[in-house]
Amino acid sequence: MTPYLDCAERLPFSPTPLRRQDPVPSDLEIAEQARRKPITLVAEEMGLYPHEIEAFGPHKAKVKLCALGRLSKLPMGKYVDVTAITPTPLGEGKTTTTLGLSQALGAHLDRRVVTCIRQPSLGPTFGIKGGAAGGGYSQVVPMQDFNLHLTGDMHAITAAHNLASAALDARIFHESDATDEQLFERLMPKDRHGHRVFAHSLKLRLGKLGVQAENPDDLSAADRRRLCRLDIDPKEIMWRRVMDVSDRFLRGITVGQGNEEKDFQHDSGFDISSSSELMAILALCRSLRDLRLRIGRVVVALDRKGVPVTLEDLGVAGAMTALMRDAIKPTLIQTMEGTPVLVHAGPFANIAHGNSSILADKIALHSAEYVVTESGFGADMGMEKFCDIKCRVSGLRPDCVVVVATVRSLKMHGGGPKVVAGKPLDPVYTEENLELLRKGLPNLFHHLEVVRRFGIPAVVAVNRFSTDTELELELIRMAATVEGGAADAVICEHWAKGGEGAVDLANAVVKACEQPSDFRFLYELEHTIKDKIETIAKEIYGADGVDYSELAESKIKEFTELGYDTFPICMAKTHLSISHDPTLKGRPKGFRIPVRDVRASVGAGFLYPLLGKMSTMPGLPTRPSFYDIDVDTNTGRIMGLF
Amino acid sequence: MTPYLDCAERLPFSPTPLRRQDPVPSDLEIAEQARRKPITLVAEEMGLYPHEIEAFGPHKAKVKLCALGRLSKLPMGKYVDVTAITPTPLGEGKTTTTLGLSQALGAHLDRRVVTCIRQPSLGPTFGIKGGAAGGGYSQVVPMQDFNLHLTGDMHAITAAHNLASAALDARIFHESDATDEQLFERLMPKDRHGHRVFAHSLKLRLGKLGVQAENPDDLSAADRRRLCRLDIDPKEIMWRRVMDVSDRFLRGITVGQGNEEKDFQHDSGFDISSSSELMAILALCRSLRDLRLRIGRVVVALDRKGVPVTLEDLGVAGAMTALMRDAIKPTLIQTMEGTPVLVHAGPFANIAHGNSSILADKIALHSAEYVVTESGFGADMGMEKFCDIKCRVSGLRPDCVVVVATVRSLKMHGGGPKVVAGKPLDPVYTEENLELLRKGLPNLFHHLEVVRRFGIPAVVAVNRFSTDTELELELIRMAATVEGGAADAVICEHWAKGGEGAVDLANAVVKACEQPSDFRFLYELEHTIKDKIETIAKEIYGADGVDYSELAESKIKEFTELGYDTFPICMAKTHLSISHDPTLKGRPKGFRIPVRDVRASVGAGFLYPLLGKMSTMPGLPTRPSFYDIDVDTNTGRIMGLF
Repeated sequence: MTPYLDCAERLPFSPTPLRRQDPVPSDLEIAEQARRKPITLVAEEMGLYPHEIEAFGPHKAKVKLCALGRLSKLPMGKYVDVTAITPTPLGEGKTTTTLGLSQALGAHLDRRVVTCIRQPSLGPTFGIKGGAAGGGYSQVVPMQDFNLHLTGDMHAITAAHNLASAALDARIFHESDATDEQLFERLMPKDRHGHRVFAHSLKLRLGKLGVQAENPDDLSAADRRRLCRLDIDPKEIMWRRVMDVSDRFLRGITVGQGNEEKDFQHDSGFDISSSSELMAILALCRSLRDLRLRIGRVVVALDRKGVPVTLEDLGVAGAMTALMRDAIKPTLIQTMEGTPVLVHAGPFANIAHGNSSILADKIALHSAEYVVTESGFGADMGMEKFCDIKCRVSGLRPDCVVVVATVRSLKMHGGGPKVVAGKPLDPVYTEENLELLRKGLPNLFHHLEVVRRFGIPAVVAVNRFSTDTELELELIRMAATVEGGAADAVICEHWAKGGEGAVDLANAVVKACEQPSDFRFLYELEHTIKDKIETIAKEIYGADGVDYSELAESKIKEFTELGYDTFPICMAKTHLSISHDPTLKGRPKGFRIPVRDVRASVGAGFLYPLLGKMSTMPGLPTRPSFYDIDVDTNTGRIMGLF
Repeated sequence: MTPYLDCAERLPFSPTPLRRQDPVPSDLEIAEQARRKPITLVAEEMGLYPHEIEAFGPHKAKVKLCALGRLSKLPMGKYVDVTAITPTPLGEGKTTTTLGLSQALGAHLDRRVVTCIRQPSLGPTFGIKGGAAGGGYSQVVPMQDFNLHLTGDMHAITAAHNLASAALDARIFHESDATDEQLFERLMPKDRHGHRVFAHSLKLRLGKLGVQAENPDDLSAADRRRLCRLDIDPKEIMWRRVMDVSDRFLRGITVGQGNEEKDFQHDSGFDISSSSELMAILALCRSLRDLRLRIGRVVVALDRKGVPVTLEDLGVAGAMTALMRDAIKPTLIQTMEGTPVLVHAGPFANIAHGNSSILADKIALHSAEYVVTESGFGADMGMEKFCDIKCRVSGLRPDCVVVVATVRSLKMHGGGPKVVAGKPLDPVYTEENLELLRKGLPNLFHHLEVVRRFGIPAVVAVNRFSTDTELELELIRMAATVEGGAADAVICEHWAKGGEGAVDLANAVVKACEQPSDFRFLYELEHTIKDKIETIAKEIYGADGVDYSELAESKIKEFTELGYDTFPICMAKTHLSISHDPTLKGRPKGFRIPVRDVRASVGAGFLYPLLGKMSTMPGLPTRPSFYDIDVDTNTGRIMGLF
């Protein structure tokens, strides 16, 4: 039937049967009782050669990029992005739906499927959110590894990011008390034969400065100074530090208060690792070479003349790439029904682009008939960035978008009481209330319009909770197609039933993927920065207009002069409303978007306007998730992580 | 011959032949051209079953602790610790000697050998020191993995440590504006059935407080307050944060300057990860259960009544253990000649105990005829702590100590000019100078006396550098045995020749191990804190006495009252002199040791007096090692790391 089956070395797919119980046990119990295929078998079934993976224990493997070189000659499967309506703070089961859909396609409809998801952040896992491995009978396994270190990519990003922070501060410190000649001597010392050589990064800097020289000793005094003295303006440092812990006390700090450094103390702070520009770069890079170049281009500060200082200028980009050399390989694990899952990168969609990696998607697309990927939060957030940023870089085009909706979130949008993580739900959410539900539907309609704006067929997945009534579910289903214009809308029970509960959804997705896609970007890159921001604000958020702070105005001017105006826009916005204001539920109207600041991720290749206050470092509640997490010291089993 | 050969499933050892070149190429070139056996073969040759390891790619594996359970029925091999004289800042090739000796034993003398070494810290690797994988033809491979993330243990420790830091500050923050009843409600919320349960850590806290209660609702208001309010004194926080980066600007910082936290801002700082108490615990723990208990006992602060607050009280010890669940498994790699190497833990010997793990040593001892382990810096530092701390916890006894000496360092001790990393060596170090060398010998004699004090036979390994002359080498060799009382002294050429260059050393070690060992501790635990400190100061450092600061006096009083006076002592001292003063070379006499402060690592189980100023966070030089590190983006090869 399909050309992918020609791949002779691929084993036929063997689904892992579920042993379902009713009532559904806890996520952890289900995950612990899950049967798992050896990861080498999962890889072989996906069509990967043994030499193309590196096993990390029996149930995880890194996929080497040489696999992509071979696979890229094969045709690509259908590309399905899973998004959602505006969620409650509890989430609406987007990852669960992504996995349920995949299990249905692979284990019940006999379609070759690969799922691509992001690695969760340890901060929220131990803080307020718990694990992120799906739920019920739609999970990835091993869920404990998935929720903890996996194969170390997040740690590699943290290490690389903070090496750059240390390099930046140390450079200012050392330049302060060295003459030009001393800096020259230190940066280009004579080797044992009395020769000096340019390190690679210094050669690149020579090129940037337009200086021609074969031998360091030939440089004029002026050129030595330009080459060796970065002359960073301490007031124009744009690079903070990162940590994968929810540590609110690191949001604002003063560094350099040790005895030796105290003349250089300055304000700084930590963000959570997933918000690092390196994470955005990892997700967007197309090769190891591209990763290296993008890291080199990252702007970390301005010098005293206003010229951008890059990681290449600091001489640290190569070492950072070395730290990320293994992180560039996606990690292969499996769903509970044995279909392959690639986990790669993990940016947040409210402060970054919120999508898993292009490399994982490409490996998946050349290996499967269907690739199910997930973008963070609602269609206004991760999906818009998926289309306008990720697809623009990758050249890939989605064939279908799944919009996850729940009775709970639509009731909230209809005016239901506030939903707060860790607090009991108001009964309105667990009893039938068609009126409240109906009032919330415009939020769904808005997200469907956003999808339509990109020319992609939308399928609504109504993710059933046990307290939902038939009438409530049916109301959403009908409204989504009749009023919302979705290609289809399906009630799903993958949480309780695994893939079997999402077979209807899978059939609807297969059908939608047959429709001709008419994908188009929202804006063209050559539009001005303000045009692009306003297009997103009006067409995606439904705002009346945009108001810029003085700071934002000056940044836009500066970035335009620096030539950054052709970058796409990555809005940093709350995920709890279509607007910039988290309290505005439903489908807000009659508001204007305030742009507080605009920042540049030159390495990742986008500008990010800040709409309102966005926290880039979560905090811990009084009783964090870690309170329940422990290890059974007899078995090594991790308890309380779900 | 030996009972170990009875292990039927063990494959015969197959040495990896070296392809030596003359002159010796760079460490990186040698490492890259090294042949490597699959790690599964290395494991099988060591006598491990396939199910006892978890492969991390083709050349690294974690050894599961179930292996120790099975192996512990087998007899133990000989236990050899490698130490050194007081080193120059360039190091004297201790790791290189450890590996060369192992290659000689395994690949040339047909002895079953396992080597145990520490994981290097990324901070110095990218800062001033470069890699730590040995050198020349005595290296571990894959050296790039060894020098970078290996299997992620260091990152796990960093994550666990910083989770505790965040938990500590957040707890103070949340307690400040909550009533006792609110804290009770938040820490023991009702579940969906209206029941409250004690989390595991709260149950343990109940026991600590001596409160009997089955049901949280039965607690009196006073007990609720005692249970839920830790009442931490912000002035008595003893737990900082850690990072595996040499970032001098994090030595002294102020945290909590964000808008929400600014009423709680306070001084803090970061230490390098290897100095974390968790690293010391990892090296000293005997099982997963022991790890869990030790983490729970760590004291992070005092409450306002002066009572210690532990990680168990914070409810975070279980989650930290979960983060370290895989870090407790040693990592198996190999030497260039194919002998097995266990890498585990990585504490520094100047600020911590500086030894690899007890678990790795035990697995090794039950698998081999000879185990070569390494302790940090000189015999006054890592080896003293090896004997008095590590062996006391493990119950293991060393059979022989190898003391590494070099012409270079002895000349420095004889009064040679200062040796500074990154600066050219004075010619006195590369030309024959028997007088200077002779003047430096007392440093070697002192270290041999230290070894003798513990009742262990000492073998001196004179690590040959290419500029050393025969007369110089012979002078050390003769003096070591005749004047120094070493069991033997051997000139080694393992850097240039691999194991073949250390065959004489290996034979001397085998012979020394046959001598009856008369191992004894330096002090008894029941001695007072001051007695223990003074015994080390006088007998190991040769000091005339000890002077305590006011702070140290009060800490000693406090710790004695708290019952911490039975802990062993882990001196935090410079490694660059036998004394506390790094400028005093040779064998200093007529000095007194100043104790500035005394701190407690209650989880690791030792007190650490601070002698003079010890930096717990290195800094980067103007031209750090990272300047030369990069990735060949065509091959993925890491360049410049050595």
